[in-house]
Amino acid sequence: MAPASDMKKLLGDEISKHNSRESCWVVIHGKAYDVTDFLPEHPGGPKVILKYAGKDATDEFDPIHPPDTLDKYLDKSKHLGEVDMSTIAEEQSDKDPDEEERQERIKEMPTLEQCFNLADFEAVARRVMKKTSWAYYSSGADDEITMRENHSAFHKIWFRPRVLVDVENIDLSTTMLGTRVDIPFYATATALGKLGHPEGEVILTRAAKKHNVIQMIPTLASCSFDELVDARQGDQVQWLQLYVNKNRDITKRIVQHAENRGCKGLFITVDAPQLGRREKDMRSKFSDTGSDVQSTSGDEIDRSQGAARAISSFIDPSLSWKDIPWFLSITNMPVILKGVQRVEDVIRAIEAGVHGVVLSNHGGRQLDFARSGIEILAEVMPVLRERGWENRIEIYVDGGIRRATDIIKALCLGAKGVGIGRPFLFAMSAYGLPGVDRAMQLLKDEMAMNMRLIGCSSVDQLNPSLVDSRGLGVHTATVPRDTLHLSCYDPLVPPGNKITSKL
Amino acid sequence: MAPASDMKKLLGDEISKHNSRESCWVVIHGKAYDVTDFLPEHPGGPKVILKYAGKDATDEFDPIHPPDTLDKYLDKSKHLGEVDMSTIAEEQSDKDPDEEERQERIKEMPTLEQCFNLADFEAVARRVMKKTSWAYYSSGADDEITMRENHSAFHKIWFRPRVLVDVENIDLSTTMLGTRVDIPFYATATALGKLGHPEGEVILTRAAKKHNVIQMIPTLASCSFDELVDARQGDQVQWLQLYVNKNRDITKRIVQHAENRGCKGLFITVDAPQLGRREKDMRSKFSDTGSDVQSTSGDEIDRSQGAARAISSFIDPSLSWKDIPWFLSITNMPVILKGVQRVEDVIRAIEAGVHGVVLSNHGGRQLDFARSGIEILAEVMPVLRERGWENRIEIYVDGGIRRATDIIKALCLGAKGVGIGRPFLFAMSAYGLPGVDRAMQLLKDEMAMNMRLIGCSSVDQLNPSLVDSRGLGVHTATVPRDTLHLSCYDPLVPPGNKITSKL
Amino acid sequence: MAPASDMKKLLGDEISKHNSRESCWVVIHGKAYDVTDFLPEHPGGPKVILKYAGKDATDEFDPIHPPDTLDKYLDKSKHLGEVDMSTIAEEQSDKDPDEEERQERIKEMPTLEQCFNLADFEAVARRVMKKTSWAYYSSGADDEITMRENHSAFHKIWFRPRVLVDVENIDLSTTMLGTRVDIPFYATATALGKLGHPEGEVILTRAAKKHNVIQMIPTLASCSFDELVDARQGDQVQWLQLYVNKNRDITKRIVQHAENRGCKGLFITVDAPQLGRREKDMRSKFSDTGSDVQSTSGDEIDRSQGAARAISSFIDPSLSWKDIPWFLSITNMPVILKGVQRVEDVIRAIEAGVHGVVLSNHGGRQLDFARSGIEILAEVMPVLRERGWENRIEIYVDGGIRRATDIIKALCLGAKGVGIGRPFLFAMSAYGLPGVDRAMQLLKDEMAMNMRLIGCSSVDQLNPSLVDSRGLGVHTATVPRDTLHLSCYDPLVPPGNKITSKL
Amino acid sequence: MAPASDMKKLLGDEISKHNSRESCWVVIHGKAYDVTDFLPEHPGGPKVILKYAGKDATDEFDPIHPPDTLDKYLDKSKHLGEVDMSTIAEEQSDKDPDEEERQERIKEMPTLEQCFNLADFEAVARRVMKKTSWAYYSSGADDEITMRENHSAFHKIWFRPRVLVDVENIDLSTTMLGTRVDIPFYATATALGKLGHPEGEVILTRAAKKHNVIQMIPTLASCSFDELVDARQGDQVQWLQLYVNKNRDITKRIVQHAENRGCKGLFITVDAPQLGRREKDMRSKFSDTGSDVQSTSGDEIDRSQGAARAISSFIDPSLSWKDIPWFLSITNMPVILKGVQRVEDVIRAIEAGVHGVVLSNHGGRQLDFARSGIEILAEVMPVLRERGWENRIEIYVDGGIRRATDIIKALCLGAKGVGIGRPFLFAMSAYGLPGVDRAMQLLKDEMAMNMRLIGCSSVDQLNPSLVDSRGLGVHTATVPRDTLHLSCYDPLVPPGNKITSKL
Repeated sequence: MAPASDMKKLLGDEISKHNSRESCWVVIHGKAYDVTDFLPEHPGGPKVILKYAGKDATDEFDPIHPPDTLDKYLDKSKHLGEVDMSTIAEEQSDKDPDEEERQERIKEMPTLEQCFNLADFEAVARRVMKKTSWAYYSSGADDEITMRENHSAFHKIWFRPRVLVDVENIDLSTTMLGTRVDIPFYATATALGKLGHPEGEVILTRAAKKHNVIQMIPTLASCSFDELVDARQGDQVQWLQLYVNKNRDITKRIVQHAENRGCKGLFITVDAPQLGRREKDMRSKFSDTGSDVQSTSGDEIDRSQGAARAISSFIDPSLSWKDIPWFLSITNMPVILKGVQRVEDVIRAIEAGVHGVVLSNHGGRQLDFARSGIEILAEVMPVLRERGWENRIEIYVDGGIRRATDIIKALCLGAKGVGIGRPFLFAMSAYGLPGVDRAMQLLKDEMAMNMRLIGCSSVDQLNPSLVDSRGLGVHTATVPRDTLHLSCYDPLVPPGNKITSKL
Repeated sequence: MAPASDMKKLLGDEISKHNSRESCWVVIHGKAYDVTDFLPEHPGGPKVILKYAGKDATDEFDPIHPPDTLDKYLDKSKHLGEVDMSTIAEEQSDKDPDEEERQERIKEMPTLEQCFNLADFEAVARRVMKKTSWAYYSSGADDEITMRENHSAFHKIWFRPRVLVDVENIDLSTTMLGTRVDIPFYATATALGKLGHPEGEVILTRAAKKHNVIQMIPTLASCSFDELVDARQGDQVQWLQLYVNKNRDITKRIVQHAENRGCKGLFITVDAPQLGRREKDMRSKFSDTGSDVQSTSGDEIDRSQGAARAISSFIDPSLSWKDIPWFLSITNMPVILKGVQRVEDVIRAIEAGVHGVVLSNHGGRQLDFARSGIEILAEVMPVLRERGWENRIEIYVDGGIRRATDIIKALCLGAKGVGIGRPFLFAMSAYGLPGVDRAMQLLKDEMAMNMRLIGCSSVDQLNPSLVDSRGLGVHTATVPRDTLHLSCYDPLVPPGNKITSKL
Repeated sequence: MAPASDMKKLLGDEISKHNSRESCWVVIHGKAYDVTDFLPEHPGGPKVILKYAGKDATDEFDPIHPPDTLDKYLDKSKHLGEVDMSTIAEEQSDKDPDEEERQERIKEMPTLEQCFNLADFEAVARRVMKKTSWAYYSSGADDEITMRENHSAFHKIWFRPRVLVDVENIDLSTTMLGTRVDIPFYATATALGKLGHPEGEVILTRAAKKHNVIQMIPTLASCSFDELVDARQGDQVQWLQLYVNKNRDITKRIVQHAENRGCKGLFITVDAPQLGRREKDMRSKFSDTGSDVQSTSGDEIDRSQGAARAISSFIDPSLSWKDIPWFLSITNMPVILKGVQRVEDVIRAIEAGVHGVVLSNHGGRQLDFARSGIEILAEVMPVLRERGWENRIEIYVDGGIRRATDIIKALCLGAKGVGIGRPFLFAMSAYGLPGVDRAMQLLKDEMAMNMRLIGCSSVDQLNPSLVDSRGLGVHTATVPRDTLHLSCYDPLVPPGNKITSKL
Repeated sequence: MAPASDMKKLLGDEISKHNSRESCWVVIHGKAYDVTDFLPEHPGGPKVILKYAGKDATDEFDPIHPPDTLDKYLDKSKHLGEVDMSTIAEEQSDKDPDEEERQERIKEMPTLEQCFNLADFEAVARRVMKKTSWAYYSSGADDEITMRENHSAFHKIWFRPRVLVDVENIDLSTTMLGTRVDIPFYATATALGKLGHPEGEVILTRAAKKHNVIQMIPTLASCSFDELVDARQGDQVQWLQLYVNKNRDITKRIVQHAENRGCKGLFITVDAPQLGRREKDMRSKFSDTGSDVQSTSGDEIDRSQGAARAISSFIDPSLSWKDIPWFLSITNMPVILKGVQRVEDVIRAIEAGVHGVVLSNHGGRQLDFARSGIEILAEVMPVLRERGWENRIEIYVDGGIRRATDIIKALCLGAKGVGIGRPFLFAMSAYGLPGVDRAMQLLKDEMAMNMRLIGCSSVDQLNPSLVDSRGLGVHTATVPRDTLHLSCYDPLVPPGNKITSKL
């Protein structure tokens, strides 16, 4: 029988005994690993692993770990060898009515041609993604006020279009850190792409190539850094997004490896000394901690703190302005600070000699009530212009961009370009590469048309006189709504029917 | 039998063979046409025609083409002659439940006397129009923010009425480009009137005559220009709205023909170098591309671009200020720029010597987040008054006018008059000529009463001190709501019931 | 049999023959009247009467005509005498399911003790009043923006309370035109009280006495002027509200009669040269024109105009500032202009020598987008104070007052007192005199408490430093919502399910 | 049988005879009391007691009276002795479907770990608390505008975070009136804790100890003052909240007892000369006056006034600035005025020599349209800084704090700390001590994270440059909504179906 030829393979019976904190084995892609000693170091906390102790963890492992993770982080002595997968008891998967309904929705999902804008992809993704994956992508910090403000802020900006300008030929191209691109957006870094699509971020690499825009490679990608670089074609340009490790040797190795492999920009994330809490995500994961990077698992009542610290353990919360010269010394890539949020820090960034800043609040996933990047931009540029500093660095904005009009508004106010994250993830999750391709094409079509309608034939003609942004700094309307607290509020009601006193 | 006497007529069998791109015949009003060579030139794209290749296309053709279209644009050699209609297979029309429900709604539609304001006609039209026709009329650009802002903007203007003024006799009349009219509105140009009513725009011609207001004849009318001029009675006045053709000879011919036929004003559309995308319309047409003037049909993924270009092909995107002297040289009609959107361009228009501008964003159908005409007016007039230029041109406003109070507000702020489009289309679609008649009468009744209540007995008494428009330029409230993106947003919820951990 | 003893009485058979425009008899309170010649003069239009031609019209007549109407306006020769009511065919009243449901709601209506504020009475009245009566009381002009703004405006004013003030004893009393009252509100004039309660406005007379506040007697009361004066007790004070008749002799007679009967103030309505259209009311009356004072009845398409003119016929639209000296000459009562709406007119009123103004927009029933009285007050007082004129007249405000805090806000901003209309009508309609009594008492309780909480023990301590009204003049939020036009708007939706192309 | 050994005990038969105003006995905790003479003095009014005349009132008595109430307030001669409880007829408790549904909800309530923020506790409490208890805790004054504004106001404040600051170690501690605490909030005084949990406020004492924060002991606690002091552990610090009694001897005794028992601060409530009306609470109590401290019971139509006066009877409405020196003379505790609401009064407080103020509107339970404490703070601090007085007193804020970001905002604007009330009550009501423990821990976790994200490692670094509070003073948006009045409003509707005229 088959087992005869698998003599050296490990058997399920043996593996299933190592199912505790004392001895913990897991099977991944047909190989067994002893992770007992690694448990306390696991960034996601030990509990997530223990759920699969003695079992096959492949399905849970894949979306959140690049393939080279085990080779990189687990000593070879702990690689126990191949497993006879026929001896692994198949998980008695409970019949999941949610999943069945989702499969029904997938059957009925609209064709790609029915998506006319970026919100459409989001609406479809919401219907067809796994609930937990949707929760991870779509959630924000606290009451998600900032997350929603990011897009709402663009709605406070209106156009002052020019007419009777020759707009027969529209040129959307511009340069970003020296690279010419076809349209002034880049695919910004977002984590855990395989939650949305089994191929992960390489899909974004391919779509970026097709539309000649830049991809920013995320530290927390599901694909490994090298996989994403290997997917590059021709003279395609990529940037690196960096969470700074406490161990600066590791950081240095990552940065220099990226430069050697051809990355053309280093984006240092400065708005995440600690990863934010996203309660919608936490709530969705409560019964399913497997894919929860911000799990509240632990043994004590205040265990949420424990996991938060675990995930923070590789990010250095002491990173400060004092470190900037060192970064400038270890690489020739332009250095950009991603997550700057006030004019004072833009000025300091210029003085520190970096090459750019991204005005960003991390997609509303970190500090709630952080202001939108576009609002900060409108505050920053007049100050820089007054000093004559507006060309000393390149300024980018991300967060809330959903329409070409949003891109045009950002450029009118002085941005060099904008980063787009979630919309491409949702297009990818719903339709794969064709989805991202169409999403990018829709932005190009929208932008060409809207450039005509605003009366500009090329990106360099965009200027502040074309927008009315007086409403931008005004925060009186509690736009968007505070749905969480509102759901608690018991509205006053008028009297009901007659009540006969019991006295 | 009947066929004997129809010897020279074409038979259905023969026609039905020409049902492909290689040989494409269509039947319209009992005559056959060979449109094979015309396919690539069709402004609506070839696919729309191919749907009816070898068949009778009359029902689809009529609403969107003036009757003289085939004579004008298709070479006589392609006019194949009369068809024996009894030999044409009747379309197996699927029983359409939507259409059946619509017919039920038509039976129950309110009487004309139940309509008390312009919104009432719109509500009725929404119920009784064909879904696709409703979508064409009612849709706007992108998120339809500008389309809704157009009316909302009037709600930011409040009155400062005078009391104890003799208002026994109210005179609503004024002049527009030298023509005396009974009330300061005109029926502005709107496309494809036969989508709403089989008779098309001549209904507006008759209603305008009855109420002594001016009709602006649209380039894209369903009726031909001459039909609309022929429907004129007595000393009735009409204007011409013009999309400028790349071929200036054609443009010149159109303009001079209009002048010869008695038009008294030339309104050059300057806000549409490319026709806007209206996604609600696109969505409604997805299964029914026949009447879709902005179809996404085509063979490639980015085919929306193709159709957009096709429809743009007869509009000249290079039209610019340099062309204005030429227009002034080819006609003695007053020349008005329709779609001006900023004070700088109003000044330039005056300097260019035109006779008027319409502050307009094309009914919110072109650039989303363009500001409302009424807001631009409030910005323009103080600048002109400061220069003493307020009487050098006539300034009109259109977009969002639904009440006589809206008209009064526009005149208080300095407009000579206002254009009204969709409301008359909706009244026409629901009730035909009596509907438009009543709509215009309601505006007159409302205006007479509101003139009394504001304390003015004639139009020339209206002035800025009668309104409080301080709120007009403030865009903080995201009024109106961003329904498309909001429909994607997943509201935060409090915890549900107990979840027993599976660990 | 019975008929024998009724020899001189008119019989139903005879009466029912006079059922046309040519000969029109109606029965009211058991007497027949020939109103044929009066038809064209009827302020409500002839059609309303014709509905009851040849029939008993008592039920429809009562709520909208004071009992002395027929004696006053119909020549004695047309009084045909008593009717044998047993011969009048009883109206075949259709079983009305709406009315049955209303009767059910009345059985279940809450006890008076369950009403804790003025909104509660309104909620109950809405449930238990006849739909048409509710529509008459609750409706406003056009989109009812002003009607709702009236109350909303108070919500833009916040308190700056004082603490540690001795508030053991609270004195709510003040004087109005020389009369001491227990609390600074008066029951303002409202029309057609019998629509809400069969006894009509005398209920308000009694409640005003009980709480020592002033009642303003309306021109259009259901009770006659003398009935309301006769209901006065002791030293109770009443004022007269006046619609000025074109025939100044009639006006003079009314004014001098009122003064002779002891009225202490003449409030001339200046905001209604024509009575407003209230579409909600018109819509509710469409099938039931009997009680419709603003009926659209008539024979022509523009017949709404006809009725509007009919009702205006006794109000003089030419009333102007030139008439004011005459009023001051014919009476010793203080003269107050009711409905002033801008600071310029307050100044003119002072210059004209009147004794007061009511800043009012007629409860939002006349000009939509008229500003709230409280907003005008906040604009007026600083101008008067600058001139040292703040004590030259008494300034009242009405519209939207629902809470004692609203009264306090008005007094802080400089009003002498406030008028309250609809809330007392609703309390009366739901609960009769006990309802109005409780409504007034609730206001007293609320006001005593809120005076304590704001840190003032008497009305004269109220001053502008106690409120923050910075938001009052800002109209950016389209508060309240434009429900009529919103109900027409078709929200954008994301794509639905898959659509298989039919091609 | 049992009765033999209970010879001296009172029997149910005898007790049940004393069931009237003339002779009123009640049983509490197995003892009978004659409260006939006490009826008129009962702060909650006599009716509440009469409901239980001749019966066992323990269940109703407990939550709202400290255990020592009877000993303190009822003369020993009225203590009638023990009751043979077996002879007391058990109340025929009606099967209560509401209560049954509540019990079902309790079974399904989420686990503590499912609560991720303070709103979650509120949502759970709303589902599992008795309706009347929920109504007492959750209600506010009038339209509850101020109650909701309290939290909404924080949403008008946005952050201007610093990046690249070393935030590895976060220190949340600060001092309050000389006491070092772990995080800058205290558990503020709230009444009637046993409505939420049978153990009452001692739970808060224990939680405050665990998290090293200060508890403010309320005058109206369900537990007695001494119980709460006895529950103190180690060097735990408590403050006293004081309603000032008309009888200053009683006040003096209370204050000095508190000081003797170790209280470290005296918070004199100055915003409640009369206890507010809370209509939601009144409505919920209408059929159940037992636990209604603001009952409208009484015999006359205006009886709400009577009860309001009763409850006010022990609070002195004449308390004024003149009393402050006396307070400073009778205690060495720091004296803080709780409920100051305008900058003028803060200045006066400093001049009067007190040690602190709490900017507060009593949780929105007193004067509706009082502004939020946080808005007052933003107005106060610049004035104090201009005078150099910002350190002369400690300034606290309470009302609406639900997130650590709210705390941070208050400290940025100049507060020394914040008081939190309802959130801990809700956590206690839903989950007891573990609930309050988790709620406090969540705030600590949130605050540590948000301090990192705003770029501050300790509380003293928080400053005004870190927030954008420009929107704070703007009250234009009627945020929050006026639900009570809106529920009365009848929205305009378009026409319905055809109506065939009956004429």
